[in-house]
Amino acid sequence: MNLTVPVKTKSRSYLIHISQHDFANARRVIKKFLREKRLFIITNTTVARLYRKKIEEKFQAHFKTIWLVMPDGERHKNLKTCEKLLTDLSRAGANRNSSVLALGGGVVGDVAGFVASVYMRGISYIQMPTTLLAQVDSSVGGKTGVDLGTGKNLAGTFYQPRAVIIHADFLKTLPEREFRCGMAEVIKYGVIGNWRFFRWLDRNAQAVKQHQPSILSHLIQVCCAMKARIVSQDEKESGQRAILNLGHTLGHAIEVLTHYKNYNHGEAVAIGMMYAAQLSCRLGISKNDESQKLKDMIKKFNLPWQVPPFSPKQYLAAMSRDKKSQGTSLRFILVEKIGKVKIKSLSLKEIGQCL
Amino acid sequence: MNLTVPVKTKSRSYLIHISQHDFANARRVIKKFLREKRLFIITNTTVARLYRKKIEEKFQAHFKTIWLVMPDGERHKNLKTCEKLLTDLSRAGANRNSSVLALGGGVVGDVAGFVASVYMRGISYIQMPTTLLAQVDSSVGGKTGVDLGTGKNLAGTFYQPRAVIIHADFLKTLPEREFRCGMAEVIKYGVIGNWRFFRWLDRNAQAVKQHQPSILSHLIQVCCAMKARIVSQDEKESGQRAILNLGHTLGHAIEVLTHYKNYNHGEAVAIGMMYAAQLSCRLGISKNDESQKLKDMIKKFNLPWQVPPFSPKQYLAAMSRDKKSQGTSLRFILVEKIGKVKIKSLSLKEIGQCL
Repeated sequence: MNLTVPVKTKSRSYLIHISQHDFANARRVIKKFLREKRLFIITNTTVARLYRKKIEEKFQAHFKTIWLVMPDGERHKNLKTCEKLLTDLSRAGANRNSSVLALGGGVVGDVAGFVASVYMRGISYIQMPTTLLAQVDSSVGGKTGVDLGTGKNLAGTFYQPRAVIIHADFLKTLPEREFRCGMAEVIKYGVIGNWRFFRWLDRNAQAVKQHQPSILSHLIQVCCAMKARIVSQDEKESGQRAILNLGHTLGHAIEVLTHYKNYNHGEAVAIGMMYAAQLSCRLGISKNDESQKLKDMIKKFNLPWQVPPFSPKQYLAAMSRDKKSQGTSLRFILVEKIGKVKIKSLSLKEIGQCL
Repeated sequence: MNLTVPVKTKSRSYLIHISQHDFANARRVIKKFLREKRLFIITNTTVARLYRKKIEEKFQAHFKTIWLVMPDGERHKNLKTCEKLLTDLSRAGANRNSSVLALGGGVVGDVAGFVASVYMRGISYIQMPTTLLAQVDSSVGGKTGVDLGTGKNLAGTFYQPRAVIIHADFLKTLPEREFRCGMAEVIKYGVIGNWRFFRWLDRNAQAVKQHQPSILSHLIQVCCAMKARIVSQDEKESGQRAILNLGHTLGHAIEVLTHYKNYNHGEAVAIGMMYAAQLSCRLGISKNDESQKLKDMIKKFNLPWQVPPFSPKQYLAAMSRDKKSQGTSLRFILVEKIGKVKIKSLSLKEIGQCL
């Protein structure tokens, strides 16, 4: 069964296509958008090793595929990688009518989206996310970007894809820890705006962990629909889109302080969400049992919830360099209850009081 | 006297402010847009040497200026320079509320605009062009970008400034050859859409060459108004904006073949315009005397008009790598008569027949 979720932003409207089966549906969607008989596929070494042959076979009768393969890993999410990919596109003769397919996880999606957004001042691209995290979050909404030496995602663009193609079967080859990482963002959707989904997750945790196809499709669809709705209302994060950052302020600080080694993004976000719930309680925004419910859910998916032991000073220093920082205060996402969050400008001191 | 010219694009509307006197008007305009008590100024070593002290003096009582100085010259218009500037912005604590002033010629404007467009996915910037070329052309319209090893302006964005501040007095320190370079684009405006202005230029050539302030202000105003009108109708160059590329297809090829050494951009464009006029004649698009009028004008401003002696094959190879290339054909700008041009898709063979 193929599901579609519409995304309507000021700059572009497009569809998210969710399917379980082979790549025939993907090929149909891609072909509709191609303006020449070739497709530039940006991916990483791991995805290329697992899927290149299979995809080439499926696509080759319809259009040529030209593969640009970057090394795997967040540390390659930088301008140097972009320069290489841009030059490769140019050498391969890509022009304004060419299209890019971003085939991979969050890093590939962010890098390929950025490259497409600046090559000849913008060519069209399609997202085809291969990790749970990318499928429920980063591939939808048009945020692209790379890290600088001084911080994550500091250079990028808002640039919507022509389509997002979600092929749930990719998850079969996804390492278990990467799957868990995506689950942190999935739980987040329940917390920020859908207590029914949170309850559904609780009840279906076993089936989710067993990767039951119909359960995963439903999960992806719900998350994408929520993301699409939020992004549609606030494409450039001038207001409400910020609720998607629940858990990310402390999460980023944890990633920075541990040099992106001990915790992956989802693990850091899980801890960050838990902290946000506890802080909300301390500030009188929510009742205590809400943070207990969240802790139970996080533990159910084998994600961490305890803040690693750095000093408050270290955390505050790391958070003050956050993109969302406005001088000495930060727009912080607090949890009123499961399904309802609140954006509040807090001083660093207020933020740090549960550390 | 202060003149303003409005620019209305789909993504943003703003004003071009043209003034002759000291920097008080510039300061007023900038202050209106600042959301914090500091301004990040991106410029190059030459402009900093000539104007930093003067500008700091004028601005310092109103807001702090933080200077990011790049080396002078087109060869620094690359992603490496951008990475350096982006990292410097980050180190200096620039956030989403920060603003950039692009103070310099076309290279600084393109680089600073690009940097502003991608720093934290876009912060506001103001153009303050210091060369004639940038004042009449590149600072207006929101095209930003850098060169890749494989070609010019291959990476960039469409990103409109909050304002353009044109201070005609900067031209007093502009080298004569740079001034001539700008004049090629000025002549271009007459050819693409304003025969009255072309005639005015012819009659006032002496005053222009003597840099008479009121004459220069008028000239800048007319050119900016034309550019603003064209850009307003077609922000992302999907159609009519392409007429601004008159002379640029062969011009770029000349720059590439001479490794950007023998001819500056304006000189190459002058030759390119002359060639477009001759080709238009050969194709029966225009009458011969039009190319004679153009030649007289080009000579009047001491610009070159003769195509440098490379083989047709070399030219065609260079042009086929043009951004405007669509496989084996190119959208070429032809001259019907002074004040009227025509966009036509021509094969490389057709384009090459006057070489």
